[in-house]
Amino acid sequence: MDTLFEKFKKKINQISDLNQANGVLGWDQQVNMPADGAEGRGYVLGTIQELIHEELTSPEMGQMLEDLKSFEKSQDPDSDEVRLIKFTRRQYEKRTKVSTRWVGEYAMAQTVGESNWEKAKAASDFKMFLPYLEKIIDLKREYAEFFKPYDHVYDPLLDDFEPGMKTAEVKSIFKTLRPRQVELIKAINQKPEIDNRFLYLEYPEKEQLEFGVEVIKKFGFDFNKARQDKSVHPFTQGLNIGDARITTRIDPGYLGTGLFGTMHECGHALYELGYSPKLARTLLSDGASYAVHESQSRMWENLVGRSLAFWKYFYPKLQAKFPSQLGNVDLKTFYKGINKVAPSLIRVEADEATYNLHIMLRLELEIEFIEGSLKPKDLSEAWNARIKEYLGLTPPNDAKGVLQDVHWSSGYIGYFPTYALGNLLSVQLWEKLSGEMPDMEQRIEKGEFGNLLHWLRTNVHVHGAKFEPQELIRKITGSPIDPQPYIRYLEKKFSEIYKI
Amino acid sequence: MDTLFEKFKKKINQISDLNQANGVLGWDQQVNMPADGAEGRGYVLGTIQELIHEELTSPEMGQMLEDLKSFEKSQDPDSDEVRLIKFTRRQYEKRTKVSTRWVGEYAMAQTVGESNWEKAKAASDFKMFLPYLEKIIDLKREYAEFFKPYDHVYDPLLDDFEPGMKTAEVKSIFKTLRPRQVELIKAINQKPEIDNRFLYLEYPEKEQLEFGVEVIKKFGFDFNKARQDKSVHPFTQGLNIGDARITTRIDPGYLGTGLFGTMHECGHALYELGYSPKLARTLLSDGASYAVHESQSRMWENLVGRSLAFWKYFYPKLQAKFPSQLGNVDLKTFYKGINKVAPSLIRVEADEATYNLHIMLRLELEIEFIEGSLKPKDLSEAWNARIKEYLGLTPPNDAKGVLQDVHWSSGYIGYFPTYALGNLLSVQLWEKLSGEMPDMEQRIEKGEFGNLLHWLRTNVHVHGAKFEPQELIRKITGSPIDPQPYIRYLEKKFSEIYKI
Repeated sequence: MDTLFEKFKKKINQISDLNQANGVLGWDQQVNMPADGAEGRGYVLGTIQELIHEELTSPEMGQMLEDLKSFEKSQDPDSDEVRLIKFTRRQYEKRTKVSTRWVGEYAMAQTVGESNWEKAKAASDFKMFLPYLEKIIDLKREYAEFFKPYDHVYDPLLDDFEPGMKTAEVKSIFKTLRPRQVELIKAINQKPEIDNRFLYLEYPEKEQLEFGVEVIKKFGFDFNKARQDKSVHPFTQGLNIGDARITTRIDPGYLGTGLFGTMHECGHALYELGYSPKLARTLLSDGASYAVHESQSRMWENLVGRSLAFWKYFYPKLQAKFPSQLGNVDLKTFYKGINKVAPSLIRVEADEATYNLHIMLRLELEIEFIEGSLKPKDLSEAWNARIKEYLGLTPPNDAKGVLQDVHWSSGYIGYFPTYALGNLLSVQLWEKLSGEMPDMEQRIEKGEFGNLLHWLRTNVHVHGAKFEPQELIRKITGSPIDPQPYIRYLEKKFSEIYKI
Repeated sequence: MDTLFEKFKKKINQISDLNQANGVLGWDQQVNMPADGAEGRGYVLGTIQELIHEELTSPEMGQMLEDLKSFEKSQDPDSDEVRLIKFTRRQYEKRTKVSTRWVGEYAMAQTVGESNWEKAKAASDFKMFLPYLEKIIDLKREYAEFFKPYDHVYDPLLDDFEPGMKTAEVKSIFKTLRPRQVELIKAINQKPEIDNRFLYLEYPEKEQLEFGVEVIKKFGFDFNKARQDKSVHPFTQGLNIGDARITTRIDPGYLGTGLFGTMHECGHALYELGYSPKLARTLLSDGASYAVHESQSRMWENLVGRSLAFWKYFYPKLQAKFPSQLGNVDLKTFYKGINKVAPSLIRVEADEATYNLHIMLRLELEIEFIEGSLKPKDLSEAWNARIKEYLGLTPPNDAKGVLQDVHWSSGYIGYFPTYALGNLLSVQLWEKLSGEMPDMEQRIEKGEFGNLLHWLRTNVHVHGAKFEPQELIRKITGSPIDPQPYIRYLEKKFSEIYKI
């Protein structure tokens, strides 16, 4: 029976290597590729992805997964071997349920959708994008049908990003969260506005980059295993446990973009570098889910990077880098400045208190148009009404409203909730780890992050994708994803800052 | 029958895409990869190369190539279709002749050989490298046996780098060349030494890079289709006709390294960018051979970049970049300086007049140890005796002698001759093109390279790997590779410079 598993493992190694090749090709495309290389690269990516799909859905793979069932029963159900088989079987079953015709049409709709979204956004005209969005929504509704029976039509979509998570669970979490966040924002709005204009002075790129590197090196970002480049849209690409790459965007007129972006991507990279070496070259050498991944980036960005403890250590260093900009700004003022709450139209620029409301708005609209109760043609109007209701704002145009995010044009419907879940998870994990290490704040004040990273490594990172997200969170914290820690955190932090 | 060809073409497209993925992975490994990514990357490269090998040697491929024979007969023998089938059949036949056992052992010997060569070179101890070299030579001799009958045991090795070329041809070319080059060098040695110490002043990296970019942009290096990076060992990686990449090494204490290295790699890249779009995603979207590739790099580096005409245009610009270093050096002195002939121990630093002698030495030794008439253990001694005979020099140690080049450790036996053949070819093509365009020199003096590039594009580049090198050269110049143009060029150029 070992021989069969070895044969299976060898095939998995090959698929995992192709995944990694795909990662290098994608990273290179965004960071290095000359403009005219796009067509050739498109073909190469298509071929690699086709090979991965063929291998994962081959009759040979199906037979192996069937034959491995008795081996599975003889092993520890939590062993790497059994978990790898289960994970692969899930992939096999999901992929073989979907028709080849659908896969082709969807790939085309994504490509056409993205380029037309770009044009529509540039023209700020939702109607230009509408026919492409309608096509994508139709395809996504058809996709859900492959997975009948389901509890909710949105379930199969959500499951692609957050394995095992149900629409009902997300709805219930958000139902608890929404009134408390809305209430908090209302209370903040009655307080005097924080002045953070000092963040919007001229901050030269070179010094911004240097300071970012100083911070993430302290976090444990090791340049023997990682690198940093510049790109328009910051992202992280993990390749293997010796090679993870982040990109950073620097805004020379605003300190926040580069600073918090660097910490955010560093959090993703540290996760990628922390998977157990025993999972290398398998499909389990990956994050447990999009939400768990986001919990890691948000933890380093917000729980660490926007905390007073962190700045007690780093603020004098930042002032030394930018004496003319920050020399006369004291620590408390700076801390308040980077934590200013102000409802805004753009999700990626939102503060911690308002961010999740942007997500809830998108989730509600997604569920409605997938259910069919909201027609795509009415989406721009629905968006504007909802953002008025939640944040009291009216988008001046579609580019700053319904067209602001790329996700729907790429077919990423079911993705948005993971951003909010990641926020919740980051605090849920933080409560757990700071309970176990009560001197965490004192350590951060001294610029020591080793025990934090060690805790994340041994409790979260090492498992890779062995466990589904809810199982993993329960294993670590004793409960599934829970909005209460996040609510407690937000209320405490902003009550202090705003003296509520 | 079209359907069969289409099926074949689709498989070729896939193989070509995998080749391109391999190219991106290799380039990234040398330019970007963090050190600890090496192990994971090794597996990915292994998997991709295995897939390429499997596809090219599959029974399905064999059957298609058999079935395509009648289609071939119905087509123009010079059509892209027929040439692609022929090229692929050659690959199929070569690869299927070799045993799987040999492929595995050879891959291992290459990996182990390279790392032990590095160590032996660092210790300057040939004996440390000897057992690994013996293994590689044994494997290469075994490789030749797969291709029996052959005219010469070295033929199958040479054929891997220079398709269709025979050992007897190379020997005959070098037999003509050697005495004339030796005689020229002797004559030069009796003349006063040229003083080129001004090339060895401090030349800041930034300005060196800027000047290099200025030059290659004039050559036609288009940054929408190409990029330049720094690396320890300069190289060119062509990916597709919209994406070719060169790397450059700058020596801040010597102007020649970066300057001529940049033009050299640019020549390779222009070739890669010039393949016919109709050959895209096929195995013919590649250079005709290593020698033809080298002819392109050497032409831009030497025929253009070391010519007086070139410097009439560019020298004032170089002086403006480096006024303190070159302000008092006149054009003639500079031109003589960059063309100084001085026998040296290291091939990659050799001037135009002595370079080929380095190659001949290696070729003779390669032939002897592959024939078995020279034992690997006697190689260091044989090297030193031969370089004394040819260049009058004695290496102070093995690092500056027999261990200087990586090639043998990587199993690249049969590769060296292509460097000399490339030199010959560069001049053979130059004679032809300047015969057709008699105002070439005047154009270069004005910094105009468009008609030169156009000629190379339409006569050389566009064909890619459609024709074997000798066939291509005959097509273009009317004769096979011929040493006479090179001899004429060398004698004329250096007689003028050295007043012989």
